[in-house]
Amino acid sequence: MGCVTDFFTYETTKSVVVKSWTIGVINRAVQLLIITYFVCWVFLHEKAYQIRDSSIESSVMTKVKGIGRYSKQIMDVADYVIPPQGSSVFVILTKLITTPKQVLNHCPETDDKYKCSNDSYCTRNNPTSNGFLTGRCVRSYCQIQGWCPTENDTVRMPIVMEAENFTIFVKNSVRFPIFDFERGNLPGSLNCRYDPHKSPFCPIFRLGDIVRLAGQNFTNLAEKGGVLSIKIGWLCDLDQSWDLCVPRYSFTRLDGVSEKNNVSPGYNFRFARYYMNPDGSEFRTLIKAFGIRIDVLVYGNAGKFNIIPTLINTVAAFTSVGVGTVLCDIILLNFLKGADQYKAKKFEEISDASTSFGSHMFKSDQTLAGRGDEKRSTDSGAFSIGL
Amino acid sequence: MGCVTDFFTYETTKSVVVKSWTIGVINRAVQLLIITYFVCWVFLHEKAYQIRDSSIESSVMTKVKGIGRYSKQIMDVADYVIPPQGSSVFVILTKLITTPKQVLNHCPETDDKYKCSNDSYCTRNNPTSNGFLTGRCVRSYCQIQGWCPTENDTVRMPIVMEAENFTIFVKNSVRFPIFDFERGNLPGSLNCRYDPHKSPFCPIFRLGDIVRLAGQNFTNLAEKGGVLSIKIGWLCDLDQSWDLCVPRYSFTRLDGVSEKNNVSPGYNFRFARYYMNPDGSEFRTLIKAFGIRIDVLVYGNAGKFNIIPTLINTVAAFTSVGVGTVLCDIILLNFLKGADQYKAKKFEEISDASTSFGSHMFKSDQTLAGRGDEKRSTDSGAFSIGL
Amino acid sequence: MGCVTDFFTYETTKSVVVKSWTIGVINRAVQLLIITYFVCWVFLHEKAYQIRDSSIESSVMTKVKGIGRYSKQIMDVADYVIPPQGSSVFVILTKLITTPKQVLNHCPETDDKYKCSNDSYCTRNNPTSNGFLTGRCVRSYCQIQGWCPTENDTVRMPIVMEAENFTIFVKNSVRFPIFDFERGNLPGSLNCRYDPHKSPFCPIFRLGDIVRLAGQNFTNLAEKGGVLSIKIGWLCDLDQSWDLCVPRYSFTRLDGVSEKNNVSPGYNFRFARYYMNPDGSEFRTLIKAFGIRIDVLVYGNAGKFNIIPTLINTVAAFTSVGVGTVLCDIILLNFLKGADQYKAKKFEEISDASTSFGSHMFKSDQTLAGRGDEKRSTDSGAFSIGL
Repeated sequence: MGCVTDFFTYETTKSVVVKSWTIGVINRAVQLLIITYFVCWVFLHEKAYQIRDSSIESSVMTKVKGIGRYSKQIMDVADYVIPPQGSSVFVILTKLITTPKQVLNHCPETDDKYKCSNDSYCTRNNPTSNGFLTGRCVRSYCQIQGWCPTENDTVRMPIVMEAENFTIFVKNSVRFPIFDFERGNLPGSLNCRYDPHKSPFCPIFRLGDIVRLAGQNFTNLAEKGGVLSIKIGWLCDLDQSWDLCVPRYSFTRLDGVSEKNNVSPGYNFRFARYYMNPDGSEFRTLIKAFGIRIDVLVYGNAGKFNIIPTLINTVAAFTSVGVGTVLCDIILLNFLKGADQYKAKKFEEISDASTSFGSHMFKSDQTLAGRGDEKRSTDSGAFSIGL
Repeated sequence: MGCVTDFFTYETTKSVVVKSWTIGVINRAVQLLIITYFVCWVFLHEKAYQIRDSSIESSVMTKVKGIGRYSKQIMDVADYVIPPQGSSVFVILTKLITTPKQVLNHCPETDDKYKCSNDSYCTRNNPTSNGFLTGRCVRSYCQIQGWCPTENDTVRMPIVMEAENFTIFVKNSVRFPIFDFERGNLPGSLNCRYDPHKSPFCPIFRLGDIVRLAGQNFTNLAEKGGVLSIKIGWLCDLDQSWDLCVPRYSFTRLDGVSEKNNVSPGYNFRFARYYMNPDGSEFRTLIKAFGIRIDVLVYGNAGKFNIIPTLINTVAAFTSVGVGTVLCDIILLNFLKGADQYKAKKFEEISDASTSFGSHMFKSDQTLAGRGDEKRSTDSGAFSIGL
Repeated sequence: MGCVTDFFTYETTKSVVVKSWTIGVINRAVQLLIITYFVCWVFLHEKAYQIRDSSIESSVMTKVKGIGRYSKQIMDVADYVIPPQGSSVFVILTKLITTPKQVLNHCPETDDKYKCSNDSYCTRNNPTSNGFLTGRCVRSYCQIQGWCPTENDTVRMPIVMEAENFTIFVKNSVRFPIFDFERGNLPGSLNCRYDPHKSPFCPIFRLGDIVRLAGQNFTNLAEKGGVLSIKIGWLCDLDQSWDLCVPRYSFTRLDGVSEKNNVSPGYNFRFARYYMNPDGSEFRTLIKAFGIRIDVLVYGNAGKFNIIPTLINTVAAFTSVGVGTVLCDIILLNFLKGADQYKAKKFEEISDASTSFGSHMFKSDQTLAGRGDEKRSTDSGAFSIGL
């Protein structure tokens, strides 16, 4: 029985209440500060009362529209978008260096690195960027075996000027699995053109605008090639109304560094189209393509009220208010007028068990204890931190 | 010496033990609640004793199998899978609108937007979706310069019915770098077909099943095109046996919104195959392809026992039990019978240093202090929260 | 007025100071331990004084260089890299099984599964891997309708030996949006070759080296195909100098499991090149390609000093030092010589309000209280934990 009664007891700390304006004000000020921090930052700003879902599920479809002219030819989407399947990463070709009718054969190199006066300059089987040296020197250039004629990518070519007016339609739908919340980026009508101010939710972007909003110059970019990103941000507070969960579009140049860097500026790649002669021999058109690559990046998270984080953080807030005492104690016990006497009250000394009883007798007298504390505290300041 | 002895002292709070059933029971109840929370939620559910590795490294390879019939032609994998290289995102073509033998030339538009009665209707160089207006009106349609004949994508085409039986083999291996733990999704044998109940670990999926499990209708999806995801989840507790770390497959429609939305439903794209006449002139076959895009998404994390988080959380648990006092103090000092007398015990008053000594003399008498407390507490309830 | 003065009071816990070497040393030791943990782990190792940005924005461009020989043909980049557009995931073809001049027609299967002695063996319209059975048995094989001749992928083919010397140039630029910090991986000059020791920052990798550093054998890999990763890690401390934020390259085989697993080893896929006869009939070259897929994976985060986390963690550190008391109390009140007398000092009993006043009178005598505590504590050990 005794055991049970003993178990069901409540133990709370014995406190000293200091009626001092100075420390009182400091104390409350610190507490106010802590409460403000929790209310404003933790709860209002960080939304600590919500559970967040950052595992956003997203699907992106893109569709480019527009017609371009290039060297007397007409280019449509099927010609200038690579890859064609409307994925989230694609390239819009803006400049082409074409080498038609290449066949596997022997021909002289075009690169001046392979200028030669006789065969000895051309070590057989050495690889060049176009093929393998045959060991022969033809028309003062080493001969190679490979795709002939070799590409000459030093020619200056124009860019597809119309590309600036091409439009990119981005269809994006996102899902937050935890809340099973689904949302798309399509507005009621698609008769619009994205504009950061006038129509910030229109998912149809003019390439020229994207380039401008990314702080780039279209002609330079189209000339050298580069990588831009369309970022779609979904930051949704599901405690608020459904239609406040809207996408935020932003645009940056991703390969910004390569732009400044002269070692290897821009973005280009080579691909080929293969043909076959009636006789069954294969030939190809090699294309060195410069273009603007667009990466559509989707990020975001959603939050919704939940009781568990709310409780935990509320408790944390309450208990944290107590933290103020650490600071106040330091002030109270060291810098305040009459600190010694506060110590006398706060600290009740009790020395080692061996001599406990005796000391106990005396130390039970507060005033003495106080004196003892004074002395002590003067020797070791660390102690008065109250830890 | 004194300094040293003073340093090696131990300071603990002086406590008041309340032998009251009411508060005792409340106190223990609250403590029990907190302990339960830590044991059940933090430790058992959240596995706070483990370190987690969420930086999952994954590689996905896919292989589609199946033969389809389309407009008297036979389509195999090389024909209907784009891109071909077995990546984690690919499209299975289910409907094709083909425009063969396109050459760069002049021809009338097919779009009724460009109906005309005379040349004045057709402003020269205006871009259409197929080319640039030449300024001439031919057979009551504006003439364009571009790929001719222009595509007519209003024709109704069938779908590849066999696609429902195509199978998708997904090879996935994951790695958790922190634990250097590697795992694959291949079972002992591949003579199987995925079934959520009968064979949940078989990595060979029938397209029709995926569509069904994603809650879609195959014919609609194949008709309009859409995006499905095969999600592979790896949630591994490495404290348990190796073969309990298994993949969980789930299926959703990613562009679910576009489905409901009439503005731009489904998924389709255009690509072309280029050919060359013996005379060197190029022509192409333009294909508007509708298809089912499959995104294979891999997520997961692994946890393993580690001493640091275990210690931290154990300490947190222990100390948190003390939090209960905040609540109990409020009850004890305000709502409990004899609250005043509890205050008397708990709070020991000490007023401003200026008058300290005198006040000290009197306040040292508990009972008086008690009275002081009573009065005080009645004025400001906030105070009795014990903060 | 009284209310105000009462509000501006400061309340601190009344403490018992134990002057005992044993407990004193333990106390300080525990505190030292906690401080060390915070200083060394939380602050120095975990950099708790920084805010971290893990939402790294990255763009990757790749360019493969090298010339290969394959069955008397020369292959250049346009021939052996798929997809061509220099994305972060690409395949270098190392082995090809080519089936040229396929036309849609009727022909016998090559697979022994379809050996037959008469038509009854070949159920009409059954799909094979190459087409649909026509129901006829021709030359002791079931006849199919499909792309003819059917592929025979059992032939042994050589690999592109030169592939080992192909070089992969990786251009990567990253951005940490929160700090708006941008960085690229290009060194001053590109006349280099990556070497883990000699030139660890050179972004030009020899395929053979990557394979070796991933602990693989080139010939096996090229023969069967596989997936390697080039991981680029950016772990930047922005409090330090700009040029200490450098990429770390590492290499692993991603499909490591499939290697051990015999069910489906390696990596291969099929694609086709389409041609057209002058008469307008289409034919194709089917290619079963084995290759080494390279995934360039970028990860990383950046940290920078920020006052908020610094404050929070400093406070946490300070308060945590108090946690030591939990442990020390247990020792002090249970295992230490004179524990009872410590309890006497620490605990001041107060029984239920009903009998409060009386008990109050007596219990106010410390020694009695002590006795009461002794008795109590002996019954229930749990209690002496001081919670």
